[in-house]
Amino acid sequence: MNKMLPDSTLPERTRSSTEYLLAAEEAALQAKRADPHSPYYIPPSATPDPTLQRRHFLMGAMAVVGAGAIRQARAAAPAGAVAREVPADATKVQGTPVGDDGGYGTRSQFETEVRTLYPNPTTFSSWTMTPLEKGMGIITPSGLHFERSHGGTPTIDPSKHSLYVHGMVKQPKKYSMADLKRFPSISRVHFIECSGNGLTEWSKPTLKTVQGTHGLTSTSEWTGVPLSTILGEVDVRSGAKWLLAEGGDAAVMTRSIPLEKAMKDCFLAYGQNGEAIRPEQGYPIRLMVPGYEGNMHIKWLRRLEISDKPFMTREETSKYTDLRPNGKAVQFSFEMDAKSVITSPSGEMQLDGAGFYEITGLAWSGRGRVKRVEVSTDGGKTWKEAQLQGPIMSICHTRFRFPWKWNGRETVIQSRCIDETGYMQPTLKQLVNLRGLNGPLGSIYHLNAIQSWKIANDGKVSNVHQS
Amino acid sequence: MNKMLPDSTLPERTRSSTEYLLAAEEAALQAKRADPHSPYYIPPSATPDPTLQRRHFLMGAMAVVGAGAIRQARAAAPAGAVAREVPADATKVQGTPVGDDGGYGTRSQFETEVRTLYPNPTTFSSWTMTPLEKGMGIITPSGLHFERSHGGTPTIDPSKHSLYVHGMVKQPKKYSMADLKRFPSISRVHFIECSGNGLTEWSKPTLKTVQGTHGLTSTSEWTGVPLSTILGEVDVRSGAKWLLAEGGDAAVMTRSIPLEKAMKDCFLAYGQNGEAIRPEQGYPIRLMVPGYEGNMHIKWLRRLEISDKPFMTREETSKYTDLRPNGKAVQFSFEMDAKSVITSPSGEMQLDGAGFYEITGLAWSGRGRVKRVEVSTDGGKTWKEAQLQGPIMSICHTRFRFPWKWNGRETVIQSRCIDETGYMQPTLKQLVNLRGLNGPLGSIYHLNAIQSWKIANDGKVSNVHQS
Repeated sequence: MNKMLPDSTLPERTRSSTEYLLAAEEAALQAKRADPHSPYYIPPSATPDPTLQRRHFLMGAMAVVGAGAIRQARAAAPAGAVAREVPADATKVQGTPVGDDGGYGTRSQFETEVRTLYPNPTTFSSWTMTPLEKGMGIITPSGLHFERSHGGTPTIDPSKHSLYVHGMVKQPKKYSMADLKRFPSISRVHFIECSGNGLTEWSKPTLKTVQGTHGLTSTSEWTGVPLSTILGEVDVRSGAKWLLAEGGDAAVMTRSIPLEKAMKDCFLAYGQNGEAIRPEQGYPIRLMVPGYEGNMHIKWLRRLEISDKPFMTREETSKYTDLRPNGKAVQFSFEMDAKSVITSPSGEMQLDGAGFYEITGLAWSGRGRVKRVEVSTDGGKTWKEAQLQGPIMSICHTRFRFPWKWNGRETVIQSRCIDETGYMQPTLKQLVNLRGLNGPLGSIYHLNAIQSWKIANDGKVSNVHQS
Repeated sequence: MNKMLPDSTLPERTRSSTEYLLAAEEAALQAKRADPHSPYYIPPSATPDPTLQRRHFLMGAMAVVGAGAIRQARAAAPAGAVAREVPADATKVQGTPVGDDGGYGTRSQFETEVRTLYPNPTTFSSWTMTPLEKGMGIITPSGLHFERSHGGTPTIDPSKHSLYVHGMVKQPKKYSMADLKRFPSISRVHFIECSGNGLTEWSKPTLKTVQGTHGLTSTSEWTGVPLSTILGEVDVRSGAKWLLAEGGDAAVMTRSIPLEKAMKDCFLAYGQNGEAIRPEQGYPIRLMVPGYEGNMHIKWLRRLEISDKPFMTREETSKYTDLRPNGKAVQFSFEMDAKSVITSPSGEMQLDGAGFYEITGLAWSGRGRVKRVEVSTDGGKTWKEAQLQGPIMSICHTRFRFPWKWNGRETVIQSRCIDETGYMQPTLKQLVNLRGLNGPLGSIYHLNAIQSWKIANDGKVSNVHQS
């Protein structure tokens, strides 16, 4: 049963050199520690309490090292980075010591991409978009997850936050964050997409980059408690069919969610990409409603009310509905349909002449797994299957890649997603024929049409609508 | 073929209210933009160049908003967070506006976990450890990925960095970062584990938390170019069997890697968790050698040399070898054997009385997928199968969970991993019987024994060796 693999039978050597070097290295380190001019100097007054020591050291490193050169340099670095001097030859100088960042690292000062405001910074905005053109793989860095709020990001002390569950239940309950974290947990890698993703693009190509046209979707590994566990605890009464989720932000954001969905796969997420959920994503807890409109994933969740009918909140009556050509609006259009976009090459990029390029992008569906992605490099005349990066997860960004040799002549590149239900991402024309153009921007929500990028003769890439 | 799902047939409502609200909201926003006392005020002098506008706005936001309250508050926040005032009722005040973070978000000020130095801050250290006890799911936040360097973290300008590939090749080549990024890419979710993970724990239980005993392993989604692509380009000569990988840090870290492994699954990673690889992980590029010792994943990679024999560098002769009872050392012990650890409850935690607890932890193997994890709550007398969180990926942390009702009496909890090769994680006694205790700390590298956590009658959890 306990089968241990044999140890390596590769070359052996004698023991002496290791011992010598360990001793020599230790002596050298001790010397550094005793030298007040060394960055490794440990003052003799250091307290022996290990907890205090750690705190002291970290605070000390931040206060002392940080106050001078590094703190000053920080102002010149992009958001989320620390500016450091760049040596002519990095092999000739000691690098930044471990722990210099206070124990929580930042990105390189040479990486400058940021979430951007819509549509440009001279306009008021309540969302920022993920720079998908810079993305790699499927995980969105938490610092770049798109952001959408209706009253800004609240600052909430998790030790004082609670979730109240009531309504058509036999046992209303109030949970602290500590209570919620004691329940069995799950982790799921899911995208969240704002139903307004692409809203500028209905009538004419408007924003120039994929960040503008598609940057309201992001993917994280989310961890939390299945909502079914909580609903089981409060003992939902028969006849209950809906659930109100309410956020603790200035907008007191509310949406009605079918109880069937709540029981199926919703969960209360307190973790994002291996740490606590980020403030702008709902810290300390948000509702995950996999595959449904982003706005239903209520952030800063503080209340769940169970009922036999929907609550007809502002966000599901006056907002987040879809006008149809007959002047009426479809309500409760929950699911995000299958979609894909080429993220490279994409708008505003510049190809460096004819030759090999890897076309890559993301595909996703609110209805399950991506089954296939097809790419056209001739404006939709012919389509070829792209390679999908595994593992392909349900309701999750899926990275596709397609090798392409550009002949240097003007063309249009496109991708389309086919999900496991058999649904194929439509052309814009098909979508407009079905849904009409009735909103202030054409239409508003649920634009999932094929995106066209034109490659000009000079290699410039731009956002176009395919005629 | 193009089967479109029908639109929702849920309730409809008339158009008027949407239009009214959109107009009213727009008017309110315009008023805010014109009000110099509003945070949304846009000065009339804003330049019309959209690129400049964005930069202007972000720099402006950081300089103006940042200089006062927020910048000052930052000093009081933990690393990687921004301190903000906590309102008594967050629903009654406007939250932090989008873009206030410069477009790159940070964690909550209430989250304080950090990588820690080994063994404590009064000792010189060249590594920091991931706080696994705080982890959720399988992704390690990039800011908390364990860190190990031999000369500190170099600061490298990617536009000036290049990779030279030479030796037993027909066509030596030098690649810029831009060159490397044009090749077809792959993404893989892999752990990297330092072969010294747990080195304090051979002879007696030493460090108190799982961060100390196991924190030199972390998991990221890595993106880059298969090494086989590059080796194909330079056209490796027949007879070549090894490859030297050299880093551009102050240690000029070097290791020999078998060519067979290089061709099989090694890759040159420039991406980590959806953005550029972090400085302390090898920015702008590191070698991934999946499943092998962490030190072989050469960071800040600048040179690859192909040869017919290993290079016998310092790091594979005097260091990173394993002493055996006969006084000789095993060299080239590349693979990280199957391992697991319970991360909660774990050392220094305090159980709040008898009752339900979810036991959770991580399992991994350098030889492939985790097949099974077993948990014992009676000090190894009986074992039960834990639930594994899918998808289970090869050479990747796998989250396991096990529901447990603690009876309030002293016991020892343990986990053991069985990987797809059939290997079962050994007890410490089995491992010591096989390998001996010959290093300055007992032994040094490749400790993958079962970890025991004692739960005392009062609920206190501590690191013990099972007799």
